[in-house]
Amino acid sequence: MRAVDIIRKKRDGAELTRQEIEFLIEGVTDDSIPDYQISAWLMAVLWRGMTRAELAALTEAMLRSGVVLDLSGVSGAKVDKHSTGGVGDKTSLVIAPIVAAAGGDGRRIYVPMISGRGLGHTGGTLDKLESIPGFNVNLSLAEFRSVLEECGCALIGQTPEIAPADKKLYALRDVTATVESPYLICASIMSKKMAEGIDALVLDVKTGDGAFMKKQPDAEYLAELMVETGTRMGKKIVALITDMEQPLGRKVGNALEVEECLEIMNGAGPADLRELCLALSGWMFVLGGRSNTVAEGKQLAAEMIASGRARDTFRHIVRRQGGDARVVDDPGLLPRARHEARIQAPRAGYVTAIHCEQVGIAGMMLGGGREKKEDAVDPAVGVLLEKKMGDAVKAGETLCTVHYNLDARLVHSVPLLEKSFEIGPAPPPASPLIRKIIGGVEIR
Amino acid sequence: MRAVDIIRKKRDGAELTRQEIEFLIEGVTDDSIPDYQISAWLMAVLWRGMTRAELAALTEAMLRSGVVLDLSGVSGAKVDKHSTGGVGDKTSLVIAPIVAAAGGDGRRIYVPMISGRGLGHTGGTLDKLESIPGFNVNLSLAEFRSVLEECGCALIGQTPEIAPADKKLYALRDVTATVESPYLICASIMSKKMAEGIDALVLDVKTGDGAFMKKQPDAEYLAELMVETGTRMGKKIVALITDMEQPLGRKVGNALEVEECLEIMNGAGPADLRELCLALSGWMFVLGGRSNTVAEGKQLAAEMIASGRARDTFRHIVRRQGGDARVVDDPGLLPRARHEARIQAPRAGYVTAIHCEQVGIAGMMLGGGREKKEDAVDPAVGVLLEKKMGDAVKAGETLCTVHYNLDARLVHSVPLLEKSFEIGPAPPPASPLIRKIIGGVEIR
Repeated sequence: MRAVDIIRKKRDGAELTRQEIEFLIEGVTDDSIPDYQISAWLMAVLWRGMTRAELAALTEAMLRSGVVLDLSGVSGAKVDKHSTGGVGDKTSLVIAPIVAAAGGDGRRIYVPMISGRGLGHTGGTLDKLESIPGFNVNLSLAEFRSVLEECGCALIGQTPEIAPADKKLYALRDVTATVESPYLICASIMSKKMAEGIDALVLDVKTGDGAFMKKQPDAEYLAELMVETGTRMGKKIVALITDMEQPLGRKVGNALEVEECLEIMNGAGPADLRELCLALSGWMFVLGGRSNTVAEGKQLAAEMIASGRARDTFRHIVRRQGGDARVVDDPGLLPRARHEARIQAPRAGYVTAIHCEQVGIAGMMLGGGREKKEDAVDPAVGVLLEKKMGDAVKAGETLCTVHYNLDARLVHSVPLLEKSFEIGPAPPPASPLIRKIIGGVEIR
Repeated sequence: MRAVDIIRKKRDGAELTRQEIEFLIEGVTDDSIPDYQISAWLMAVLWRGMTRAELAALTEAMLRSGVVLDLSGVSGAKVDKHSTGGVGDKTSLVIAPIVAAAGGDGRRIYVPMISGRGLGHTGGTLDKLESIPGFNVNLSLAEFRSVLEECGCALIGQTPEIAPADKKLYALRDVTATVESPYLICASIMSKKMAEGIDALVLDVKTGDGAFMKKQPDAEYLAELMVETGTRMGKKIVALITDMEQPLGRKVGNALEVEECLEIMNGAGPADLRELCLALSGWMFVLGGRSNTVAEGKQLAAEMIASGRARDTFRHIVRRQGGDARVVDDPGLLPRARHEARIQAPRAGYVTAIHCEQVGIAGMMLGGGREKKEDAVDPAVGVLLEKKMGDAVKAGETLCTVHYNLDARLVHSVPLLEKSFEIGPAPPPASPLIRKIIGGVEIR
C-alpha cells in the first residue's frame, strides 16, 4: 500500500477502505508517512468529504492509535459531555459536579472528563480550571482514575497516551487550513471521547456567531455525524444544538467564569447558563440510567444545586486535584485584574445583537487566550457583560466592563467591544437557547 | 503574510494576488515554508484551479526562482520544442539537428534544448541520448552555451540553476497525487522553457492512451493555458495536439529509439515519425522567422534530411557532447540487448488498437525506465512494433519483438504486451496524427 495512491483515490472522490484508512493513521502515529502526504490527504478529505463507513474507520483508527481507558472496574455508568466550543461556555465546571454528586445507592454516574484548552476566540475548560490557584490538570491516567473513583468526577487535559494520531493530525490541520471539515472534526472529537472508556456522551454543538459552525445546518450536520459515529461504536449519545449568538452567561475570562460557575452552584447566576447546565446534566442522568425522563433529570440536577451537593463535590475535586479549595466559598481568592474599564452605550434603545466572536477575540487580546500555542494565559482578565440581547439601555449606560492588567492590551480590545454591541429601537425576537435535539430519540 | 491564510484563500476558491503567489514560491525556494503547507496548497490548487493572472504570476515566480539564460549575444532566433511526453516519442533527437542545420547566412535558428528523463510509462530525451556511449547531458551552462554556438543546438538536462522552485514542487507533486493539475503542469513546463532564454516555442501536446492527458479536451485546455502564458510573457508560441493512441514510430526503448532517429535522418524510417518531425521543425522555422509558411518550413526540414545536413549536425553534437560519434554512421555500435522474444497474433485480422500506456509500462518493466527515481536504466532493452494500428495480421505472425536482457524482467512484460494488441475483423477508421493546432494563428 502506498500513501500516494490513497491520496489519489480520495482526491478523485472514491471511498477509501478500512485498511487504507488504518494504513494512513498508523503511518501518522509511527511517523512512517511524511507530513506532506498527510496534509495533501487532509485537503482532499476537506474537498471530497467522507462516507459514514470511512468516518467510522477513521474514528476507530484514531482511537486505537492510543490507550482506551478501561473503567470497567468502576461500578456505575460513565457519562461525559463535550462542547464544540464557544464564548463564555463554562458548563463543564458545573455539570461534572452536579452529575457526580447525585450518586449514592449504586446508581452513581461517573464523569471522566478529558478537556481542551482555549482555541482561537473560544475559551477552554483547562485554562479556566487553572485560574484556581494550584489546580493540576496534568494528572497521570492512574491519578485520574483515583480522583474519578473518589469524587465521581475528574477533570484533566489530554495525555500523550490518548489518541496520539489526533494530536498530530490536529497540529497539521491547524497550519494547513483543514480544520473545518466536519468529518475531521467529528473523528477528532469522537476518538478522544471514546478513549475515556465512557458508556454515553452528551454533545453540546454550538451554532451562531461565536461558534465554529456559524450556520445551524452545519452544526446539525456535524451533530448527526457524531451521533451516528458514536452509535456505531455502541455508545448512547445525544446532541443538543445550542445558541452561541451571544456569550453564554455574563462573564468571559478564566477566573471570571469560575466565579460565575460558583454563582450557579450557589443557586444564583444568569438564567441562560443555569438552563443549559440543567438540560445537559438532565440528559447525562437520562443516558446514564439515573433518570427516566429529561424533565426528571433536570429536576435531579436542580436538587443537586439547591442542596449544595454539587458545590461540595466541586470543592472535593478542587482539593483532590491540588487546588486551593477555599475559592469555592470565597471567590475573592481567585486572581483579579488590577483595572476595570467601561464600554458605554452610545445611545438609548435595546441590545439587538452582540457579536460574539468579537467579544471572544477581545477577551483573547486582553491576554485571556492565546494567539500562538506558546503564549501564556492571564487568568484574571476578561469581560463582564452588563447587558445582554433584548436588554433596554440608556445612553451612556455601561454595556460591559473590561477587566484588564495592561493598557497596551486594553487599547486593542476596546474598539472591538464597542463594535460588538448593536443597539436598535426595539428588542429582537427571542430565540431559544436549545435549538434542536439530535439523537437520543428512543429515550425522550 | 502567512502561508496558512493563502492556503485557506485558495481552498475557498478565491483568487490569490501576485504577492501571495510570490511569497509561496519564495518560501518553496528558500525552504522557509514547510513541505506540509506547500502540499496542502497544491491539493487546493488541483481542486480549485487558477485564473490566468494567477497562472502567469506562478509561472513567472517559478522562472525567477533561478537563472534565466541570457542568449542575447547569440545572433539568431532561439527556438525550442517541448513535448508533454509519450511512448516512442523521440522527435527531439531529429528536429534539433534539422533546425540547427538550416543555418548559414545570418538566419540560423539556435535550439537551446533542456530536456527531461523518462517519467512513469513515458521515455525521456536524456535517457535516449545517454544510450550513445559517452554522451554527456550534464554540461555546465557555460559549456551548454559553447556547444550551442558551435553546433546551433545543444541537448542537456535541467541544471540546479534553472527553476529550482519547480524541482522542489515537482518532487512534492509526485508523492502527493497533485501532478495532474493543468495549471501546475503549465507553470512547471513554461517556467523551465522560459529560463532557456528562447524567443519562440513549439509545443507538442500529446493526447490518447499513451499520453498524460488521455482525453483530447484536456490536452487542448492545457495547450491553451501554455499558449496564453507564453504569449503573456512575450514569446511566439504554438501548440500541436498530436495523437498518442499508439507509440510513435516502431521502436520503444532508449538505444532502439536513437537507431530509429538515425533512420529518419537517413531519409528512411516510419512515416508517422517523419511526418511529425517535419511538422514540428516546420513550425520552428516559421516561429524563428526562417520560413514564411509551415509548408515552406516542412520543405526546408525535408531538405535538411535529404542533404544529410541534419545527420551531420547530429554527428557534430554527439562528438561535442562527448559521445561516440561513430554510432551515427554505424548504429550497430549502440548497446544491444542479448535476447529477443516475439509476441504473436492469436488470430488473423487487423490491429484495431494498441494500448499505448501498457506498451510504455512493459518497456519500463524491461528496465528501459524507472519505477523509482534511483533506478538505473538499461539502454539496450525495448519493444519493436512489427505491426501498427490498421495493419493486417495472420494468426501466429509477430506483433512485436521484445529486446531484453533478463528473463526475470521479460516475464512481467510479456503478458502486458500480449494484452496490448487488439485484433478485429476490419481496420479501424484512420485518425490524423496532428489533431489540432492551437495558437500561432497570425502566422498560418
